[in-house]
Amino acid sequence: MSQVVRDLIIIGAGPAGLTAAIYAARSRLSTLLLEAQYPGGQAFNTHRIDNYPGFPDGVSGPDLTEAMSRQAQVHGAELLTAQVQSLELSGSPKRVVSSEGEYAAHTVIIATGADPRKLGVPGEAQFTGRGVSYCATCDGPFFRGRRVAVVGGGDSALTDALYLARLASDVVLIHRRDRFRGVKALQERIAADERIRVITPAVVEAIEGQDSVTGVRLGAPPSGAVPAPGAAAVPERVEVEGVFIYVGTTPATAFCPGELQVDAAGYVMADEEMRTSVDGVFAAGDVRSKSLRQVVTAAGDGAIAAMNCEAWLAERGLIS
Amino acid sequence: MSQVVRDLIIIGAGPAGLTAAIYAARSRLSTLLLEAQYPGGQAFNTHRIDNYPGFPDGVSGPDLTEAMSRQAQVHGAELLTAQVQSLELSGSPKRVVSSEGEYAAHTVIIATGADPRKLGVPGEAQFTGRGVSYCATCDGPFFRGRRVAVVGGGDSALTDALYLARLASDVVLIHRRDRFRGVKALQERIAADERIRVITPAVVEAIEGQDSVTGVRLGAPPSGAVPAPGAAAVPERVEVEGVFIYVGTTPATAFCPGELQVDAAGYVMADEEMRTSVDGVFAAGDVRSKSLRQVVTAAGDGAIAAMNCEAWLAERGLIS
Repeated sequence: MSQVVRDLIIIGAGPAGLTAAIYAARSRLSTLLLEAQYPGGQAFNTHRIDNYPGFPDGVSGPDLTEAMSRQAQVHGAELLTAQVQSLELSGSPKRVVSSEGEYAAHTVIIATGADPRKLGVPGEAQFTGRGVSYCATCDGPFFRGRRVAVVGGGDSALTDALYLARLASDVVLIHRRDRFRGVKALQERIAADERIRVITPAVVEAIEGQDSVTGVRLGAPPSGAVPAPGAAAVPERVEVEGVFIYVGTTPATAFCPGELQVDAAGYVMADEEMRTSVDGVFAAGDVRSKSLRQVVTAAGDGAIAAMNCEAWLAERGLIS
Repeated sequence: MSQVVRDLIIIGAGPAGLTAAIYAARSRLSTLLLEAQYPGGQAFNTHRIDNYPGFPDGVSGPDLTEAMSRQAQVHGAELLTAQVQSLELSGSPKRVVSSEGEYAAHTVIIATGADPRKLGVPGEAQFTGRGVSYCATCDGPFFRGRRVAVVGGGDSALTDALYLARLASDVVLIHRRDRFRGVKALQERIAADERIRVITPAVVEAIEGQDSVTGVRLGAPPSGAVPAPGAAAVPERVEVEGVFIYVGTTPATAFCPGELQVDAAGYVMADEEMRTSVDGVFAAGDVRSKSLRQVVTAAGDGAIAAMNCEAWLAERGLIS
């Protein structure tokens, strides 16, 4: 079967994949970027990003990632909407099987990011899209003037609780521990915001409703966390019309073959040069096993991965 | 002597130091950023940056780094013009001796960058940014379809001559010795590449032009190197529109004490978490021993270094 063999296929068009595409296309690698949904990844769902360097007044996730996407295409990367189903990495060229057909390339960058983790409680799946959400930017405006719950204690939970406080009538912030993990600056703003009621330590036991969400049932966390002295008792049920869940992420690696080494949590192992356990396959961004997952670190990963693809191809005489 | 002890002092306000400052200040660390000249580092001297993600039409180095600098200050970092003279890293707190006095902090990030070594010939300074460049990854794509010269004989010169050959119309590679220092594999690829004309041994005596570069004047190297038998005579002048200079870089580490481990070329050794050989001291950006030196990778380093300072301080109960 005759088939175009590209220099590089990048899987995932978040900040890591888009930056890899900018660098690869500028280096004149024939570059195909496959994205299952829309460019931007998780950053697309962030209503405001304050810490991406170069935007002193902050930038919306959609604006920033749309700019990155345009930049990748300006420099010549080809962007295609396709769901990747499997990879064949042992042969030469490597093959990517997708919903839109099969593609071949000498090198592959895996930049599929990570997806929000589910609470796994009754009602969560049933009411997803009818009150349950993992994205305040997408769904917040539907809850104007209503009460919503935010579940979680990291930066994402705190950031979006503050965002939702401006849209909803009020916000209930539920966290399984009595201290938040999010940065101090966010904690201080949460504490100062009268529209936000904090309930800790508490877990959501069920999400209840009829056609849509009407409330969450709460309980004590299974192991150990005790209320701070003088803390209010945890109510059994809170009436809310929306539940925004921020309890971590899972790497999007379902399509990856077994020879691609991953860590205990399923994130792809790659060294500082973004090389994975498979020769000619690189990983970049949130899908990679690492400690800090930010737009700017994903972008840095993408640049390194692309330039190492270029070097890999050049060493083997595969680009002219 | 009573003295303010800050959480963090960052030395160097290029993209790495500025991003570290954004992250540290947002995390409510008391953060002092010391810069010897003006914020922006090498990026400040780049007239147009096409590959920093988020700016599809490119951005000027001054505009981008000014935005980063403003962002660091918006979030609460303190920026001071001061030449760092020495560090005392063994005690607690660590001490930074500068032209403006002595400062103390629990953690230090070294982000002083590296400078390309100059040829030191007429025209070099005049045409920097107008044909003279020290970075093919950054500026190569501006020379599509034009002839460029590459000056140097090490891995960087050879790698980037090959890289530029795919972008430019053709490349003239000029080296002061008759043999290259770069690895054999690169030498072979240079020899096999018809788009690259090698002129050795020869030195650039001047870079000539009007508004921008039009050519380089060549001469014989001062001491001894003789042309190989049968080698073509060195032309007096070569017409080129770009000159890429790779005669080494120098990390800005003169102030660093001996206990801070550096590599053979003098770059600060740091792991993927930006930890150096000295506890509580981190390195970020071009000053760090690594393979790819770009604005976006420096910024990524800075974010990682700052968040690891935060973690270091939190682990030791030095912040609440």
